[in-house]
Amino acid sequence: MRIKAMISYDGSGFSGYQVQPNGRTVQEEVERVLTRMNQGVFTRITASGRTDTGVHAVGQVIHFDTALSIPPSGWGKALNSQLPGDIRVMGVEEVREDFHARFDVEWKTYRYKWTLEDIPLPFERHLLSHIPGKQPDIDRMREAATALVGEHDFRSFSAANTSIQDFVRTIYEVRIERYGQQLHLVITGNGFLYNMVRIIAGTLWEVGIGKRGPDEMSAIIAAKDRSKAGKTAPPQGLYLEKVGYEKR
Amino acid sequence: MRIKAMISYDGSGFSGYQVQPNGRTVQEEVERVLTRMNQGVFTRITASGRTDTGVHAVGQVIHFDTALSIPPSGWGKALNSQLPGDIRVMGVEEVREDFHARFDVEWKTYRYKWTLEDIPLPFERHLLSHIPGKQPDIDRMREAATALVGEHDFRSFSAANTSIQDFVRTIYEVRIERYGQQLHLVITGNGFLYNMVRIIAGTLWEVGIGKRGPDEMSAIIAAKDRSKAGKTAPPQGLYLEKVGYEKR
Repeated sequence: MRIKAMISYDGSGFSGYQVQPNGRTVQEEVERVLTRMNQGVFTRITASGRTDTGVHAVGQVIHFDTALSIPPSGWGKALNSQLPGDIRVMGVEEVREDFHARFDVEWKTYRYKWTLEDIPLPFERHLLSHIPGKQPDIDRMREAATALVGEHDFRSFSAANTSIQDFVRTIYEVRIERYGQQLHLVITGNGFLYNMVRIIAGTLWEVGIGKRGPDEMSAIIAAKDRSKAGKTAPPQGLYLEKVGYEKR
Repeated sequence: MRIKAMISYDGSGFSGYQVQPNGRTVQEEVERVLTRMNQGVFTRITASGRTDTGVHAVGQVIHFDTALSIPPSGWGKALNSQLPGDIRVMGVEEVREDFHARFDVEWKTYRYKWTLEDIPLPFERHLLSHIPGKQPDIDRMREAATALVGEHDFRSFSAANTSIQDFVRTIYEVRIERYGQQLHLVITGNGFLYNMVRIIAGTLWEVGIGKRGPDEMSAIIAAKDRSKAGKTAPPQGLYLEKVGYEKR
């Protein structure tokens, strides 16, 4: 039986999603609990994609196979009772045997959160990005963001040390939203390159504070050169919000 | 020169406010930084009162004396650059030499926060209280809360193991507020007994879920008996919000 689960995690205590030799990871914590439930038979999980150290997830999606006859509603309770508090299973469903959490992704939504407070409250230090200095002009950021929508080669917004060949992705929607003293970038696309959302966030911030013009975005995209875009924004502001498996 | 500072801290990493032999405390972290700034001369801080393990502060107030000639605006930056991220200095002012952060308190406001989510997001696990089971009836809680306002002997809402003699306190205002899936109890009084807010929160919750009647509150107060009140609510929902030094 193949199970699809939506999981949320606080990335601040993890060396990212994917298992690695050093450091605690989300994948290893979930696999440990599933393997224990499965009487010690190793159970592999597959996610929609990785997230980096310090990056959070509200709606990461994973799948795994199991011979245990637990109804979907029981899986959530069983897993949450054994998982550490910084990972929660938000929902579970049984899916067809050929569902694949990574290959079947149609779109993903990421949210990047900044606080505009001068001195942010300590509760937010791992959950929001705080850039001291000038306050951004949100209209400028919105204007710049429109250039991202559509199908583009996003090499300028990809970490330089990557082995991938195809940098073309489609961005369906970008929104800049203000909630009190928080500013959110909400971006939906058919896929994202390594560090792409954080480089977009960093570049839009530079437009906001007047370091770049809103009209520069198209030229940055066209350059296909990482050095033309802005700084990579810090990980603690980034949330994998939702993964979609239906066509848009 | 006497300095008054407002500090905020995330209580989840502390064994409470007050210095103690085992465990990291807010007081010891602040005193360590001040003592270092003061060329190794030990600098004592005095707070408006203690907070327990896991309890947070948005607006704790402290005072300390110093011979350093740093302007108030410089103190905040200097302290925040050296303090750990879970303590922030939110404001600093110079006060008269006889100001006392504890003795001069006229009122305090505490906020107790519950999440009403079925499965709370992991980001909130140290910042909100989550009581699985029935959803509370907010109108019942509001009705019960009105009995608390005024001058009362609050022995029923005091931890049993206390050495104090005078249990009379005045509650100026109690509010129950809903924000999305959060429920907040906001309570202002001239002083609070040990665990008083958490016992009030636990008792109001029991009223909310129908375990007690809203009209029982007056009898619980009159009994002057801890065993008549409800369970002590967990610490992670509690915030010392504001300390007032002017008469109400």
